[in-house]
Order: sequence, then structure tokens, then C-alpha cells
Amino acid sequence: MKIGLVKANFPGERRVPLLPKDIKDFKNEILVEEGFGKFLDIDDQEYSDKGCHILSRAEVFAESEAIFSLKLIQPTDYYHLREGQMIIGWTHPFGSGQSFMKEQALPKKLIVVDLDSNSPCIYYENEIFESGIPKGLLYKNSFYAGYAGVLDALLQYGLIPTEETKIAILGSGNVAQGAFSSISKYSSNIRMYYRKTMSIFKENYTKYDIIINGIEIGKDDDPILSFSEQKSLKKGTLIIDVAADAGNTIEGSHFTSIDAPIYENAGKYYYVVPNTPSLIYRNVSQELSKILSENIFRKDCSRFIEKVKPLNK
Amino acid sequence: MKIGLVKANFPGERRVPLLPKDIKDFKNEILVEEGFGKFLDIDDQEYSDKGCHILSRAEVFAESEAIFSLKLIQPTDYYHLREGQMIIGWTHPFGSGQSFMKEQALPKKLIVVDLDSNSPCIYYENEIFESGIPKGLLYKNSFYAGYAGVLDALLQYGLIPTEETKIAILGSGNVAQGAFSSISKYSSNIRMYYRKTMSIFKENYTKYDIIINGIEIGKDDDPILSFSEQKSLKKGTLIIDVAADAGNTIEGSHFTSIDAPIYENAGKYYYVVPNTPSLIYRNVSQELSKILSENIFRKDCSRFIEKVKPLNK
Amino acid sequence: MKIGLVKANFPGERRVPLLPKDIKDFKNEILVEEGFGKFLDIDDQEYSDKGCHILSRAEVFAESEAIFSLKLIQPTDYYHLREGQMIIGWTHPFGSGQSFMKEQALPKKLIVVDLDSNSPCIYYENEIFESGIPKGLLYKNSFYAGYAGVLDALLQYGLIPTEETKIAILGSGNVAQGAFSSISKYSSNIRMYYRKTMSIFKENYTKYDIIINGIEIGKDDDPILSFSEQKSLKKGTLIIDVAADAGNTIEGSHFTSIDAPIYENAGKYYYVVPNTPSLIYRNVSQELSKILSENIFRKDCSRFIEKVKPLNK
Amino acid sequence: MKIGLVKANFPGERRVPLLPKDIKDFKNEILVEEGFGKFLDIDDQEYSDKGCHILSRAEVFAESEAIFSLKLIQPTDYYHLREGQMIIGWTHPFGSGQSFMKEQALPKKLIVVDLDSNSPCIYYENEIFESGIPKGLLYKNSFYAGYAGVLDALLQYGLIPTEETKIAILGSGNVAQGAFSSISKYSSNIRMYYRKTMSIFKENYTKYDIIINGIEIGKDDDPILSFSEQKSLKKGTLIIDVAADAGNTIEGSHFTSIDAPIYENAGKYYYVVPNTPSLIYRNVSQELSKILSENIFRKDCSRFIEKVKPLNK
Repeated sequence: MKIGLVKANFPGERRVPLLPKDIKDFKNEILVEEGFGKFLDIDDQEYSDKGCHILSRAEVFAESEAIFSLKLIQPTDYYHLREGQMIIGWTHPFGSGQSFMKEQALPKKLIVVDLDSNSPCIYYENEIFESGIPKGLLYKNSFYAGYAGVLDALLQYGLIPTEETKIAILGSGNVAQGAFSSISKYSSNIRMYYRKTMSIFKENYTKYDIIINGIEIGKDDDPILSFSEQKSLKKGTLIIDVAADAGNTIEGSHFTSIDAPIYENAGKYYYVVPNTPSLIYRNVSQELSKILSENIFRKDCSRFIEKVKPLNK
Repeated sequence: MKIGLVKANFPGERRVPLLPKDIKDFKNEILVEEGFGKFLDIDDQEYSDKGCHILSRAEVFAESEAIFSLKLIQPTDYYHLREGQMIIGWTHPFGSGQSFMKEQALPKKLIVVDLDSNSPCIYYENEIFESGIPKGLLYKNSFYAGYAGVLDALLQYGLIPTEETKIAILGSGNVAQGAFSSISKYSSNIRMYYRKTMSIFKENYTKYDIIINGIEIGKDDDPILSFSEQKSLKKGTLIIDVAADAGNTIEGSHFTSIDAPIYENAGKYYYVVPNTPSLIYRNVSQELSKILSENIFRKDCSRFIEKVKPLNK
Repeated sequence: MKIGLVKANFPGERRVPLLPKDIKDFKNEILVEEGFGKFLDIDDQEYSDKGCHILSRAEVFAESEAIFSLKLIQPTDYYHLREGQMIIGWTHPFGSGQSFMKEQALPKKLIVVDLDSNSPCIYYENEIFESGIPKGLLYKNSFYAGYAGVLDALLQYGLIPTEETKIAILGSGNVAQGAFSSISKYSSNIRMYYRKTMSIFKENYTKYDIIINGIEIGKDDDPILSFSEQKSLKKGTLIIDVAADAGNTIEGSHFTSIDAPIYENAGKYYYVVPNTPSLIYRNVSQELSKILSENIFRKDCSRFIEKVKPLNK
Repeated sequence: MKIGLVKANFPGERRVPLLPKDIKDFKNEILVEEGFGKFLDIDDQEYSDKGCHILSRAEVFAESEAIFSLKLIQPTDYYHLREGQMIIGWTHPFGSGQSFMKEQALPKKLIVVDLDSNSPCIYYENEIFESGIPKGLLYKNSFYAGYAGVLDALLQYGLIPTEETKIAILGSGNVAQGAFSSISKYSSNIRMYYRKTMSIFKENYTKYDIIINGIEIGKDDDPILSFSEQKSLKKGTLIIDVAADAGNTIEGSHFTSIDAPIYENAGKYYYVVPNTPSLIYRNVSQELSKILSENIFRKDCSRFIEKVKPLNK
């Protein structure tokens, strides 16, 4: 199958999801946009040495049966998408990708292969199909979200924590584990709270200098840190939301960005930058490329078409 | 109340639970055995400067109404214990302290104030009383068990882990968090598994170079790593049981000691050293002394007698 | 003596050189600009509680006999400076402070007390006087320049180094030591080169993925990494100049800034951000305030006038 | 040439200097003692799969033209050595290997190829020949001496350093750099002193909680820490001599061992364990094997005979 890889144009995105060294025994033809490897100083020649075709962005879209885009396809590329094309990547069909599904996927009968960690499925003509992609394939990406987000937040806040800095981490999933690993380089004065021990956090939350959130709560769940609780935090407390669950777990919080990563409200500081794995894109690209090559690019991607075949006659 | 502090004689125990700098406004008289601070280079004079009485071991036992012993009182001291004396410390009444309870506590009507993290209670004449001591008072000690145990195990095994070393941590409680924090100094190639994700561990456990256990399972629970599963681990895999739950979570494993910390079985290596917080006694003593001074030694300890008063008429 | 402390207006400067908790037994009157502690969430009230006078910027300049300014006084404040006033801080009289000396210090007969690490002297009417300030008083600031600069550079470059990343550090002084300490959190694949071993670096420099410079060479010294040597570095090599010795040690390199910290040239990346200690201002302020309180603010600063008294009749 | 590799019998030595994965295109025949890879769980079969001959210890000595022994050949093996045999390894001809040179090398006309970092030479019949081995080939071993020695010393002393722990490192060579990298995982409150700044150390040495020595001074040099200076150190100060320069740099200090690593003298603690790289033998073996394969085992070792040929007619 012809798979097209285009340069990321998602704001702040610098990860390169396929590296020449991992291109081995691919049962797919790979079309790569000129300068695809630029962020990692990889020349086009290195991709063509591995049998890839180097084309312009438009040509890649035009000649590919499937487009791999790590992040959501941006509106500026909508006009490239052709009827029946396959899209592989994080598409967040029930989240930030809803408008893409409505405006592009449905009308153009796109075959959307979503790499969501918990339910990697195929979305086609309002139906959901099992994809055969292992669950948690890219779990480490969430780990990196916590890992890189904490480091960036600390530097932007201007503090290297020490054993004197009291640190709470909410959640014990991959994002929280990445945050825990990252901040452990500097301090072991950390306590990780999860469902069973959250009551202890509620009794002690005002003691913390840094509170790191790694939890995405459900729409109807109560926030873990309400407005009033935030008010009783110490002056100067730093809240790092590496789950980027803006406004939910930390009531009233809003997104920040890589260029303006921290805002202050009533003497507390909030870091709610999304897409933080891209901060350490040189590490993450290595891992992504290895996993995607083994699980997506190596085997013929027409296998995903067969999954939706009956509808796709 | 007269509280006696004697030098630790529990094998390998070097923590000093009370430091002169924390002795302020104590509503108790403190009797300290000569050389009590020796492990931390604290002279007897520094204790007497703070109003403590420096006595021989026998005199401390003889003149104290309550004996503080961080670890279980050892048989060699049984003969010192007098009728109705109070014992404060970790006494493990349902675990390793059962024989102490049977042979000493009951017959001598001792008032046993147990500092157990989850249920800090008073045991007196076969009855259990609420102690008023906050739960999780010494939670950080479990954290240190994981923290120090992992570091010691790595050095004994001869490996500083890198990003190439695949590491699994079982559990997300304090012991597991200490282990996670400790090994994060060297690698972020870590995944922490807990109840909800243990099935993923079961599918992947053979990939790991190091498996760290931070879980104490119940008597009737299945082991998390059975004999057969251990057989299919990679040659040279290191299993660090910082919960020191010998024979349970890791089927068939047995205790090791600080002097002989690792044994090999079928090409796998096992570290099951108990009491690992004592490895970094210089850090832990600081924390213990502060917490115990605030929560145990400052207020009059006769408060514990009042808790059991009706029976103690 | 009346000492005035005004908010930093040096680009990117966020350190607060005096904290209320360190104000004890000062033989000087302290005048503080409103909002002086803002970066560290310290209210004006906390300074007035310690006997400081809270004034507007203009009033501080107007009423102070000495102005403490950590960084060079900026042109926008020149008009505030009065004849015979004392300036205490880093004034770089032979470096970036030359124009200040010429335009302000000399004509207004300012008494300039320079806190330079190697030669902390007083400059007054073209004469240089010994200050009595201990050498190396603020050596740790250079350490932090290396420490924070490396961390920021890595995040901007998008890489957390591992044991696979080959790292060279040039120099063994305080800046180089800070860089060494910082990057050691992530990798031990480091070699520090100094005068005696620089020849070994010259034989091996093309093997390195990251080259960190902690050396300020003399005006007439050869660069340590010439244009041609830079050309033969690996594609993607990151050069972090935490000595910010732009154009000297690394031939042809130029300053970058906190907002645009890295530039690429022929596939190599250059980070040459000056004033990096300010990146971790929350840590550095604590240390600065303690040292400055003990060595500058506590004793009567008129002692510096006496040093230049004969001329100042 | 036939090269024999025997199991280490140097006290505490666990490094395995050749791993099967590095055996490629060797121009030498390799004879390996049974169980040679045991410490790293490498079976004899893995060596024979790579063309090695698996023999008893005696057979290896009997059939090899050259014996590779990382550490000094022990007296228990002297009787194996045959006239004219080659010995490759660290032989310390002017240090601990003097008796070996006198009792074995000279009388049996052994060709001793010493892997000393600064002067890798061949010693044959009282003559010294250039070996062609690059200088600093195994420099990283000294780095590991500092790295592992510091970690072991801290654990034996019972302290994980924090930012409150004042740490001095003497020297800026490879051993000192390893120590610096190791302790930087836990604290950045470190200052490295070398020739130019040693005077500053002499003015401040009593402030330090931990003093790490990475310097081997010359026989006639004054100690860096004299008896009297040691007396004025703080009670409980830990002195870690990872240069293991017992009795010289730290006046009066004596060797300790892995089993009894620390002694106390007048309230100060001394760690002077030699051969500390072997503590982390699993890391160091990987590095040693790669470097030795490339620089020693790959090319025909008879090249060393040719270096001494005229004498060896």
C-alpha cells in the first residue's frame, strides 16, 4: 500500500515518526515529503536510500492511498484529502478531532485508523471496527508527556526542586509515572496519590509547593482541586497539569502554550501545556519510529481496509 | 511520663529515632542509654544538654515507665521488662511480634503502642484501643524501604541501570514509590504496574531485566510471579523484593540479609532484604526524629494509659 | 547607610537578591521599591515587617546613598543617579559596563563596588581600591550559569541525553562544574577536558554529540573550536556555550537569547544564552540573599566609602 | 596467536573482559576457561558458538601463547606460566606488580604488555618497548572507579546526600569526574578543587560534610589533607578516597575492603576501597569488552612480539 508521510504542521509539533534506520522489510511503499526529517537533521537522501519516494507535500497527498499523520490533520490540509483515503494517527474522534470527522472523514468516506492507547480502532462511515493494533502501543508517549512537561514547567517557573520542596503527584497512570520519574531526578520528597489514597491528599494538599496532575477525570466527575481548595494553597504554589485536562481536574484552569507556558492566578502558578512529548522530540521520535515501524508500517496496511471491507465494497 | 530510649539491637538497625535538635517542649522526661547517638556521632553530652538523663541500658529499663523501641524488642531484653510498662514502636502484633505479645505483653500486662502505618493502635490485655496517633505517620519509612533497597540491590547485583535496562515496578504504594524514585535517578525505562494494569504486566513480564516488588499480598492471594513464570524470565533477571514479602508475591522466594543480600536460583537473582530503611539511617533518622518528636514525645505519653484506663484500674 | 534595592530591569532578569527572612541585624537602612519581591511572590508587607521602607523607584534612587543592583544599571535609570552615590553589584567595568563607567561613574563620581568573583574591587575616579569583600563570594552563581544553561539548552534542543549521548565539557571551573552536575542527572557518558587534556579533546572532538563550553579564553588566545573544526562535527551536534563567550572559545559563534535560545549553522546547533542563572531564579535568589546579607548588607556599607576616603574628602 | 582468558581470581574482581557479542573478525584464537562468563550469566556455549575453545584453567595456561588477565596474575597461578609467554593486562610493573615482575616476568622472560592508561608499554627482559596501544584506552575505568566507589561509600556510610550536604571533590581527572558524576545524581552542592584552586579548599575544608579524593600525589608531595587538618574536620565527616591513594593524599589513611569498607578514626569516617570499578561489573564489562576487542583482540597479538623481536631472537 502507498503510505504518505508529511511534515508535521500541528502547532509546536517537532516529532519525526519514521526514521530511515527503522525502514526494513516494509510491505508498504513509503512516500515522504521533502524535508520530512529536517527537525532531526535527516536529509531526504537518507530516506531515498531506504527506498522512499521524496515528493512535494501536494504530491504525497495526491499519490498516497494512506496518509500517516501523528497529530490531527490540520484544516490547511483538508483540501488535499481524497475520497476513500486512509488516515492513520491520533485522530481523537470523540475529542479534538470531532470537527475533522464531521467535515472530512464522513463526507469523504475516509478510513480513519486511530492510534488511541486504550481503544485503537478504525472509524469508517459512522461504524467502529477493531483494528488489530495492540492496546497501549504508544503508552510511553503519555509517560513522555509527564516527563517533559514537568521539566519544562520547572524551568519556566524558575525552580530546580530539592528535598525541601514538597511535591504531590495525582494519578498513577503513564502520565503521572513520567512526571514522577522526571522530578525524581531532583527530589524524593514526592508522594503519588491515586484513587485509594486521594482522601489523604485532600487532608494535606495545602502543604505542597508543587502539585502535578496526571489524571483526566470524566465529564461528570468532581474536580480534584476545586476553586476554593486552590485558594487555600500556599502563595507561589505551582500546579503542573501534564494530563492537560484543562478546566476539569483542576477546576477553572485553562490551557497554556509552549510560548506562554505559565499563568498566575491569585498567587498560584498554572502550567497546562498540551502536546508536551514534542518538547523532547529527539528522544520520542526514536521510540515512536521503532514501535510504528514494527506495528504499523511493516505489515501491508491494506489489512485495515479488509477490516472495513464489507462496507467498503 | 518517663520514656526510656535504648540503643537498637535489632540486627542491622542503625537508625537513631530521637536527635537532640528536636527535643523542645517535651511533656515527658527522657532517659537515654549511654552511646544512644553513637551511630550519628552524637555524644551523650548533647542529649544531657537538652535535659535527658544518661543511664546504662539496665537503668533505662528499670527507671522508665515507657520504653521507646523503633523495632521489635529483642528476647535478650525481655528480662528487663516490668509489669505494666508501656512499649512504643513497631511491634507487629500480628506478624513478627506475635511471640513477643504472647510471652511478654500479655503475661506482664504491657501497654503496647504500635506505630503501624495503617492502624496505629494500643494493645493491652487482649484488647485493642484507638491510639489517637494519625494514620500514615511514618509512611515515608516505607518509601525509604523502596528507595534504599533498590540502590543496595543494584550495587550488590553490579549494575547501574541505563535507558536500555527494562524495569517493572509492582505496586503504587509507598514502598513502590520509593523504589520508583530511587531507580529514576538512573533510568526512565520504567513501568509501574498496579491492580488495574497487572494484566498488562502478566503479558509482558518476560521482557524485563529488573522486576521490583512493592506489594504485600494477602495470605490467600495468588503470587504475582509464580514458579513457572519465574522460570520463563530472561537469564540474569534481577528480582528486588523491597516489600520483603518473602515467599508470597514472588512465589518461593526467601529472605536474604544485608551481609548476604542476593541469591541466585536458575539464573535469576533475588534480593529480599528486610529493614532496608536502616541502610540510609543518616537520612531516615532526621525524618523519624522530627515526626516522633511532634507526634509522640512532645505530648505527655500518659495519654496512652488513659486510653486503656478502664482496664488498667 | 541607606541602601536602595530596585526591581531588576535587565532583560530576562528575575533574581531577587534580598529576601525578608535574611534581614537580621543589618547596620544599614534598606529602601525597597514597591513590588521588589514580586517574582518570588513576596509582598511589600513582608519587607516592611523587617523594617524596610517601601518606596517608588524614583524615591528609592532619590533617597538612597547606595544603590544595590545585581546586574548592570540600565540606561533608562541613568537619570536617577546622583553625584557621589554608591553602586554595588556586578558592574563589569572592563566588559559590558565600560560605557556605564564612562558616561555615569566617572562624571558623577560614583563609588562603584564591583562584586566580580576574582577581583571584588571599588572603582572611584579612575582609581581601583581593595574592597575587603572575600574573593569567590558569589562563585556559585557561575556554577548555576552552567547548571541552568545546560538544562535549558537540552530542552530547547529537544533531547534528554542518555548513556548513548557522547558529551564533552570544556573547562573545569565553576561554570563547567555546574554544567557537569546538571547533565550528570541524565548521563555519565561525559568527559571534562581542561588545559592538560585539551589535546585529547582535539583528537576526539568529532565523536561528540554535545559539546559544552565553560571556558572564557583571553582576547588573544586561539579558539578551542575553530570554524573548520566545527565543520567536521557530526550533523546535529549541539554546542552549549554556558560561559557565553560568544565568538571566542567557539569561533564565530554569536549570542542567543532566552526567547530565541538556539540557532542552526551548517547542521550544528548553538546555544549561547547569557545570564542563565536567572533561569532558576527561585533557587539562586535564596543563595544570593544569604551570601549578600552576610557579606554586604549586614555591616555598615559606609566602610566602602572609607576605603576610597582620601580621594572622596 | 592463541590468547587464553581465565576467570578472575583477584579478590573481589567480577568484571568479564570479553563478551561473545564482541567476538568478530578476531585475528587471534581465543581459549576460554570453563565458566569464564559465569558472573554475567554467559554460558560456555555462547563462547564456543563464536569459535572459542573451552578448556580447564590449567589447559588454557598450557596451550596459550598469551594470557589476558585484566588484573595482576595472582601467585596461585605463577606455576602455570611458561617461558616466553605473553601477559596482557594491568600489570602495574612499578607498583603492586613489582614482585610479579621480579619473580616471574624476568626469570621466565615473559613479554608483559601493560595496559596502563598513561603509558601502555611492553616490558621484556628489563627493557621497555612502545606498544602501539593508544593512550587513555581504558580511561573510563578510572571514571567508574570514582562513580561506583562514591555510591558504595554513601550506602555504607548510610547517607543519601541532599542540597544540604556540603561536598568537596579533590582533582579533576577521570576518577574525580566519575565521583562528580555519581554524586551529582543526589546533590549539586559540590565543588571540585584542582591544582589552581586547592588553596581555596585549604581555606574552607572544615566546612565539608563529604570530602572525595580523586588525586594520586607523588611520593614526595605533601598530603593534601594532613593529620592535623583531619582533626579539625567536623565530627562525622566522610572521607571517600576513590583514588585509593592510601596514606598519601589523605595522610595516615589505610586501605579498606569491599567487606569492611569504612573505618572510623576520631569521629571521621574513611572509605579507601581499591578496585571499585568491579562493583558495577555488569556495566564496566560491556565497555571493557568493546574496547579490548577493538584494540587488543581483533588484530594479531604477535604484533607485540615483533615490537620486542630483536631481543626475542
